[in-house]
Amino acid sequence: MAFALRRSLRASNPTFKQTTRLSGAVRRNGPSVARFQSSLSGAQSTRLADIDASKLQVRPREQPKELPASSTLKFGHTFTDHMLTVPWTVENGWGTPEIVPYGPLLLEPSSTVLHYAQTIFEGMKAYIDSEGQVRLFRPNMNMKRMNTSAKRIALPTFDGEALLNLIKELVRVDKRWIPKEPGHSLYIRPTLIGTQKAIGVSPPNEALLFVILSPVGPYYPDGFKPVSLYGTTEYVRAAPGGTGAYKLGVNYAPGILPQTHAAEKGYAQNLWLQGPEHYLTEVGTMNMFVTFRKPNGEYELVTPPLDGMILPGITRDSVLALAREHISGKNALPNLPKNLTVSERPVTMKEVKDASLAGNLVEMFGAGTAAVISPVNKIGYLGEDVHIPTGEDGMGPISRPIWTELVGRQTGAIPSDWSIVV
Amino acid sequence: MAFALRRSLRASNPTFKQTTRLSGAVRRNGPSVARFQSSLSGAQSTRLADIDASKLQVRPREQPKELPASSTLKFGHTFTDHMLTVPWTVENGWGTPEIVPYGPLLLEPSSTVLHYAQTIFEGMKAYIDSEGQVRLFRPNMNMKRMNTSAKRIALPTFDGEALLNLIKELVRVDKRWIPKEPGHSLYIRPTLIGTQKAIGVSPPNEALLFVILSPVGPYYPDGFKPVSLYGTTEYVRAAPGGTGAYKLGVNYAPGILPQTHAAEKGYAQNLWLQGPEHYLTEVGTMNMFVTFRKPNGEYELVTPPLDGMILPGITRDSVLALAREHISGKNALPNLPKNLTVSERPVTMKEVKDASLAGNLVEMFGAGTAAVISPVNKIGYLGEDVHIPTGEDGMGPISRPIWTELVGRQTGAIPSDWSIVV
Repeated sequence: MAFALRRSLRASNPTFKQTTRLSGAVRRNGPSVARFQSSLSGAQSTRLADIDASKLQVRPREQPKELPASSTLKFGHTFTDHMLTVPWTVENGWGTPEIVPYGPLLLEPSSTVLHYAQTIFEGMKAYIDSEGQVRLFRPNMNMKRMNTSAKRIALPTFDGEALLNLIKELVRVDKRWIPKEPGHSLYIRPTLIGTQKAIGVSPPNEALLFVILSPVGPYYPDGFKPVSLYGTTEYVRAAPGGTGAYKLGVNYAPGILPQTHAAEKGYAQNLWLQGPEHYLTEVGTMNMFVTFRKPNGEYELVTPPLDGMILPGITRDSVLALAREHISGKNALPNLPKNLTVSERPVTMKEVKDASLAGNLVEMFGAGTAAVISPVNKIGYLGEDVHIPTGEDGMGPISRPIWTELVGRQTGAIPSDWSIVV
Repeated sequence: MAFALRRSLRASNPTFKQTTRLSGAVRRNGPSVARFQSSLSGAQSTRLADIDASKLQVRPREQPKELPASSTLKFGHTFTDHMLTVPWTVENGWGTPEIVPYGPLLLEPSSTVLHYAQTIFEGMKAYIDSEGQVRLFRPNMNMKRMNTSAKRIALPTFDGEALLNLIKELVRVDKRWIPKEPGHSLYIRPTLIGTQKAIGVSPPNEALLFVILSPVGPYYPDGFKPVSLYGTTEYVRAAPGGTGAYKLGVNYAPGILPQTHAAEKGYAQNLWLQGPEHYLTEVGTMNMFVTFRKPNGEYELVTPPLDGMILPGITRDSVLALAREHISGKNALPNLPKNLTVSERPVTMKEVKDASLAGNLVEMFGAGTAAVISPVNKIGYLGEDVHIPTGEDGMGPISRPIWTELVGRQTGAIPSDWSIVV
């Protein structure tokens, strides 16, 4: 039935070239055929159209690209055969989703995104498990966050489940691009941009959602390598009343110059310090964790609270959840100390420096989708280096067992409801 | 000579279609022929190429568009026949400037600007004077600010004089688009975007500078209409250590939601209040001025200082300069009070509210390229309205004579070295 309807759509759309059958999931989870028919018949609805996965049109690339050797992959430089696009207009809402050959977008030079930075994005990964199945990690959190970001910057929101079904279909179409080597994955980049063809600063009347895929290798191909950080006090990533808690493009480009300054001073990344107290907030483009040893011998795993300046990272949330499940006994992790507490609270550089000097600093690490866990070995702060312990393999006693569980769940090696088979 | 060289360039460039002769200014002000020859001969230079106006190629639109009636113009919605593009790569620096028919850009979906908001822009205006000459207003300030913005967001800098020569040529090519009616002008929008084809957060290896032109009518077609402001305390436009002092795209899209909230509450624009003290910073996308009457009867014209959170506006600078020249006697303005002082200092909402209640608030206005001067008649602040006096024509005793002089200089009716004949 759905296939027949798609054929009639094909006849009515002169730009349409070729339709392939959708695989099961999109048909099963898609909106009802009745809704699909009503939009085809041109009936005016009082509500604008949401994303409708059942309307997906697929135009495969005629000449698939050659797969690069996994060893040559550089993060975010290689893209797959296809991309997903979903247009939006203020008059009609979300339009026809299309999977088309990866290629340049035609954008009017007046497009809002090019002038006023109206863009949001997400970062997700697809893994191949030992049985050859494709897995996504907590993708509903990305869909939810993307809608929160859209609202903040006056872009249209959407049915997250519908977009997720479309992303799954895109990943299925380009499944051969998912590298199978350990630590490899397919990075998924959903992006939503304002494309209004006028240079007024106002909610856009047009937008474009697109999803591109990039096969990536492990962040540390030769094993974990702790990074050094430069404590940035000259610039801020976020501020009270600002946009730091949302995954908006505007939080990224302004960080490149501070990152360059850190590199010039010989550090790998920058650590964003906030306010006169020099609160630790984030590491480059990652959330940040630090572990202290308390006077009673307990470990305290600390990350800054979601106070409006911190991105609610999915890796951050996963690290917290795993540590808390361990403490509660719901899911004790092998080799993770039992005498552990977890805090979401502010941390100052003074506290970190004092703990380092007193020998009570256990470890520090960044957490994010790209690197998963990124251990830190020193912080350049006001002209001197604060030293941070690292284990033989780079990681510390808290991060190592958490990383093992996290990567196990991501790749499907450890069963959990966080991992979704596509 | 330059023409002969251009002919040889034409022969060597298969994408080149048609070259028109450059008018005088570009030839006169362009770099030396020797430099032009050396770059044509393929000699490797140790420095990357800067923008070279003498290399301009012009490909005119085959079918010019029909001019819209000036009365139908809506700000930033209509664009002229042509645009200017100048590509940049990290290997070769700035490439060949081209004036081509206005039309969509082809951008890879991985382009930095679409993900990380790497974009800067400027706003300028061209006017037709009573003798039919085209005039720009203090354009060197735009070129200087654009370079400052580029540095802040890791985009390439350039020879501002060369870009200005190219902009002049573009304006000449599309001169017929400059509306001649009073208060009308041609809005010029130079934009520079990061176009690296990879989704890493780093300085881009490719960028594109483009300039588009939009004929615009007066901001207030029926005379000055004071606007009401909503004092925004829930969001900030800028913060210490942030990007508020630069003309980056990232400062604009996040302001749309606060602006929408202001509109929902019945106010025309929002007033950005900073910190627990509620310092006045900017009005929507304009700089802000307020005039107090002091106990000794003097007027004090106040605008917030350039403390890193305020855009160094060219209209702001012009208002300050005109008031100071008046006070110093260098150029006394008709009808502007003599007992006037000018301050760049912080102003809190408490000071404004107290002055309003005490009858010592004289006027308040926004200042920017689009509206020039935009008088304010009230501020919604913490649940009540602070009333601001306005004159019969909307403007007050300080803004009116300054506006008259400013517009006179912009349009060339009042001679000054601020106005440049193209």
